[in-house]
Amino acid sequence: MWRVDKDTLESLAVGAGILGTGGGGNAYVAKVWAQCELDRGARFDIIDPVEVPDDAWVVGSGGIGAPTVSVEKLRRGDEEVRALRALADHMRLQFAATVPMEVGGGNSIRPLVAAAQAGVPMVDADGMGRAFPELQMVTYFMYGVPACPAAIADDKGASAVFTAASNAKHLERLARTLAIEMGGTAGMALAPMTGAELKRTAIPRTLSVARDVGDSVRRARRSHSDPIEALLTATGGALMLVGKITDVERRTATGFARGRLSLRGNGPYGNEMEIDFQNENLIARVGGQVVATVPDLICVVAVIDAEPITTELLRYGQRVAVIGVPCHPMLSTPEALAVVGPRAFGYELDFQPLPPAGEKTPWSALSS
Amino acid sequence: MWRVDKDTLESLAVGAGILGTGGGGNAYVAKVWAQCELDRGARFDIIDPVEVPDDAWVVGSGGIGAPTVSVEKLRRGDEEVRALRALADHMRLQFAATVPMEVGGGNSIRPLVAAAQAGVPMVDADGMGRAFPELQMVTYFMYGVPACPAAIADDKGASAVFTAASNAKHLERLARTLAIEMGGTAGMALAPMTGAELKRTAIPRTLSVARDVGDSVRRARRSHSDPIEALLTATGGALMLVGKITDVERRTATGFARGRLSLRGNGPYGNEMEIDFQNENLIARVGGQVVATVPDLICVVAVIDAEPITTELLRYGQRVAVIGVPCHPMLSTPEALAVVGPRAFGYELDFQPLPPAGEKTPWSALSS
Repeated sequence: MWRVDKDTLESLAVGAGILGTGGGGNAYVAKVWAQCELDRGARFDIIDPVEVPDDAWVVGSGGIGAPTVSVEKLRRGDEEVRALRALADHMRLQFAATVPMEVGGGNSIRPLVAAAQAGVPMVDADGMGRAFPELQMVTYFMYGVPACPAAIADDKGASAVFTAASNAKHLERLARTLAIEMGGTAGMALAPMTGAELKRTAIPRTLSVARDVGDSVRRARRSHSDPIEALLTATGGALMLVGKITDVERRTATGFARGRLSLRGNGPYGNEMEIDFQNENLIARVGGQVVATVPDLICVVAVIDAEPITTELLRYGQRVAVIGVPCHPMLSTPEALAVVGPRAFGYELDFQPLPPAGEKTPWSALSS
Repeated sequence: MWRVDKDTLESLAVGAGILGTGGGGNAYVAKVWAQCELDRGARFDIIDPVEVPDDAWVVGSGGIGAPTVSVEKLRRGDEEVRALRALADHMRLQFAATVPMEVGGGNSIRPLVAAAQAGVPMVDADGMGRAFPELQMVTYFMYGVPACPAAIADDKGASAVFTAASNAKHLERLARTLAIEMGGTAGMALAPMTGAELKRTAIPRTLSVARDVGDSVRRARRSHSDPIEALLTATGGALMLVGKITDVERRTATGFARGRLSLRGNGPYGNEMEIDFQNENLIARVGGQVVATVPDLICVVAVIDAEPITTELLRYGQRVAVIGVPCHPMLSTPEALAVVGPRAFGYELDFQPLPPAGEKTPWSALSS
């Protein structure tokens, strides 16, 4: 078990922002909220998956909606825990811990707040090993946890429990529809599972990875060494471009922040890059040639301090580095690629894995 | 207790269609479905409200959506009973009976099918004493039954339980949003209440009224006497216009069939009439002067046989009679008018009660 204090929270926000590949919700807003909770005496405890008894119940937790909305509309602050309670009441059980649906931006931090509000710890694991835009894209569902029940709660006191759906994609459609009606952002509690199911379906220790990646970057900033270099070392990622944002097309449609980013600069593939995103960065192209695809991580960070830039904050003129990080092996199985490969996002493309990184990847130490 | 056989079903469909004031869902589709259930051996039992024990649980039942959709898209047939089961499972109790949310069109018949599928009777009462377009417009909610929990089920196997909402109007918004995503029509189970609450909040014996009104009309048809005259006598209604439909403006928007009907003919108020509708007929005007307003019943029926014409079936050239029937007294209290008066539908108008009918109104015999 480890505890998140204000300093760890800073590292977690940076690291989760980077692993969030542009999505997962704005980390800044969630971080400020978590800081206030710490000031009010909250305890943020994180336990290892192996510490969860096989027969204990844990619940996936996080926000749903468009990140463009979440930075403009303040939340009530208890959306996730009210969703959790609605689900616990419905199932007539107690959850022993929350587990993030994704490690990325605000959605690494919100389940921590929900856990503290419910008086339980959060598990050091998640269901994406990054962030993805849709609910069916969690490993919990890919590897067999049923789509229902799941719960949603808004900022106006409403909550609902989805009691049946054809599959996780159907759940996503229903929950997204309600989230839009609820104002574009809401809290979810989903994939209730036993400790045994958690150990089988979750990507373990990704919060530790986020914290360590964030730590490395912050240490480099303090010691005036190159934070991008530190980031590459910590993630085992490859530098794909360093340059300037020349255009951002972005719209908030059907509950997502969708769009395309254009960049000019220098990199091993060429000087101009385009990145498509749906909340998260999905496909990177150089001169029309695909150079990286989902589920690999395409991370956009500021050149000066390696601060992650989520897709709702991309702006013309920003100086950024684009970094590719190979995804966790649980995301490149056939079951996983059917849900999170390029075709699942409507591209006529197969997954083109990034060249293998050096001996160090963010995931290499995970099973230790 | 009385039982609905095929002949009673015909009367019920006609009478409920008339009381539905253009809405409540298409009665024909629901009737055909109920006939098939009878052929398969279903038993449709109707009990009086006084037969429900004070501590038994009953549940409001019916369809939600645009009637324009319900005539084009066949239902799966178990939407209401699956919503009922989702709600019963959530509340961990058994419902002893269903009760219609409205008496009108298909929504008098669907709760009967749901009851038979659940192996229980339906109560001879409803929550509107007519049909209204929105969920908060049931007397159950007006007179104190909580808005949540309520459940919804679609034709694709999905269901959800609304566990909290600010009020019944908020529930309506959430349920309508999901109903649209579910394809424009779905089944609901709402306002779970005890027998004691039912007796306090429901409009009693409205199914008997629908059956008797339908019986009168059908008898007149068989005996070649005037079915409109029979209808007027059975309802205590007043003839407002006999004429031809000269125009129908109709669109399916935000989950409703909305529009305006223009008529030309003869009547005590003048020769041209316009009727605004939102699923149900709301306001009738002659020469710009308001002559009838919601919650009074504005019924449009075919001249030739007094067959009710629901708003999704109105067409240019139809020969119709427009009949005004004073609403049940439970709908003209201040609490009720706040929810179902003209202002609740966006009109800058007060409720203008129809002139009192003769000694006979459909409601006069109800308390006997």
